Amino acid sequence: MSIIETYKPEISVDCVVFGFDGSRLKVLLVQRNDEVPDEELEGFNNRKLPGSIILPNEDLDSAAYRILEEYTGLSNIYLHQFKAFGSPNRSSYADEPWMEKVKRLNISRLVTVGYVALIKINNRIKQQSSSQKGQIVWLNIEDYRHEHLAFDHKDIIAAALESIRLKLKYEPYLMFELLPKKFTMTQLRNLHDTIYQKKSDVRNFQKRMMQLEGISALAETEVGVPHRAARYFTYTKRKNKND
Amino acid sequence: MSIIETYKPEISVDCVVFGFDGSRLKVLLVQRNDEVPDEELEGFNNRKLPGSIILPNEDLDSAAYRILEEYTGLSNIYLHQFKAFGSPNRSSYADEPWMEKVKRLNISRLVTVGYVALIKINNRIKQQSSSQKGQIVWLNIEDYRHEHLAFDHKDIIAAALESIRLKLKYEPYLMFELLPKKFTMTQLRNLHDTIYQKKSDVRNFQKRMMQLEGISALAETEVGVPHRAARYFTYTKRKNKND
Repeated sequence: MSIIETYKPEISVDCVVFGFDGSRLKVLLVQRNDEVPDEELEGFNNRKLPGSIILPNEDLDSAAYRILEEYTGLSNIYLHQFKAFGSPNRSSYADEPWMEKVKRLNISRLVTVGYVALIKINNRIKQQSSSQKGQIVWLNIEDYRHEHLAFDHKDIIAAALESIRLKLKYEPYLMFELLPKKFTMTQLRNLHDTIYQKKSDVRNFQKRMMQLEGISALAETEVGVPHRAARYFTYTKRKNKND
Repeated sequence: MSIIETYKPEISVDCVVFGFDGSRLKVLLVQRNDEVPDEELEGFNNRKLPGSIILPNEDLDSAAYRILEEYTGLSNIYLHQFKAFGSPNRSSYADEPWMEKVKRLNISRLVTVGYVALIKINNRIKQQSSSQKGQIVWLNIEDYRHEHLAFDHKDIIAAALESIRLKLKYEPYLMFELLPKKFTMTQLRNLHDTIYQKKSDVRNFQKRMMQLEGISALAETEVGVPHRAARYFTYTKRKNKND
């Protein structure tokens, strides 16, 4: 038997892609409406994280990069594995027929490895409402708890947020993976406060951020804004800091 | 078909159990000599991390606790998942026949989820040279790189050490999971320096440690030692700090 024939697909990779559009933190979801085959799947949760069964000769990191490229078209972005999810109850009554009917996978159990990706939602990405893999949705992070998501994807998003909060404590510069090249202190504070679900003091926050190595104020300010134009800041990566 | 019949074992859990015996940091390995069936398995790496294929209705955390109990007899110890390993090349030419012949698993590929456990090696554990699962070995951590270990277990140990170093930065009290209830500052420093592969300054180290919440000096000192008797310290857990 070849390796393909004996390969039993039971392990998947799911990506929690956090994106910031300059004002809101969002998470990338995929619609699977058009994949619902019939009325049997009533109660079917039609949104899910971008993910895939790993291919026969693919390692976990490569699967995660492949999924990201398929759904966002992006290849050079920040990504890290954060946790594997293997509860025997992670697929619901509606997910199993979906796997069998749509994906033609006869799977009694699926363990998934979760990855977190951080991206800047720029204009190109904002206009993209579908990928080679189907329709995509950027959901405001505040709203994911009210969604009906496939499998245990709500728990996976919660764990990803927790992992990011922890990681930012000792790698605060990761925040800049989400921000545009030029950003205002208000944008940075909004992003920070959304992640930590708190409200920072404006003055203290700026003081604290200015102590980060690599952050600097630009001469440039916002143009054409109704309020007082804010100064732009930028962040210059130190070498090898992403290791 | 029942869930048992369709269950395809492809996912395992491996535990990197770090233990400290009061002077050296060690890692728990399992001998699999007696499991080598014939000469075909020449070049077979006879030591491995304690691990197991997950059972049909077992989640990942439960599998890790089961493995720990099977190999150490301990059930209430510190444990956390740190990383999944899924390279298609993680099993060697010698590991595949072992899985097939000894474990009767026809597996073309095995993804494993790594857990770290931290334990105090007390007298009971020290005397235990075998478990219900076979012979066990406590290897000095400095020596694991020179061992021939099964699969990619050397990489898994390296990643576990890296994970512990990172985790201790924001949860320094985890160090006390490894230390006896009463410990000297030298023991704490040896443990710390082994983990970080450095040599701390004696005086600065003690000053830094005494700033940790929960650590306190006891009136008691060592007895029957050839050198000047050192003072004992203890650490009192704060509530919920293990969450």
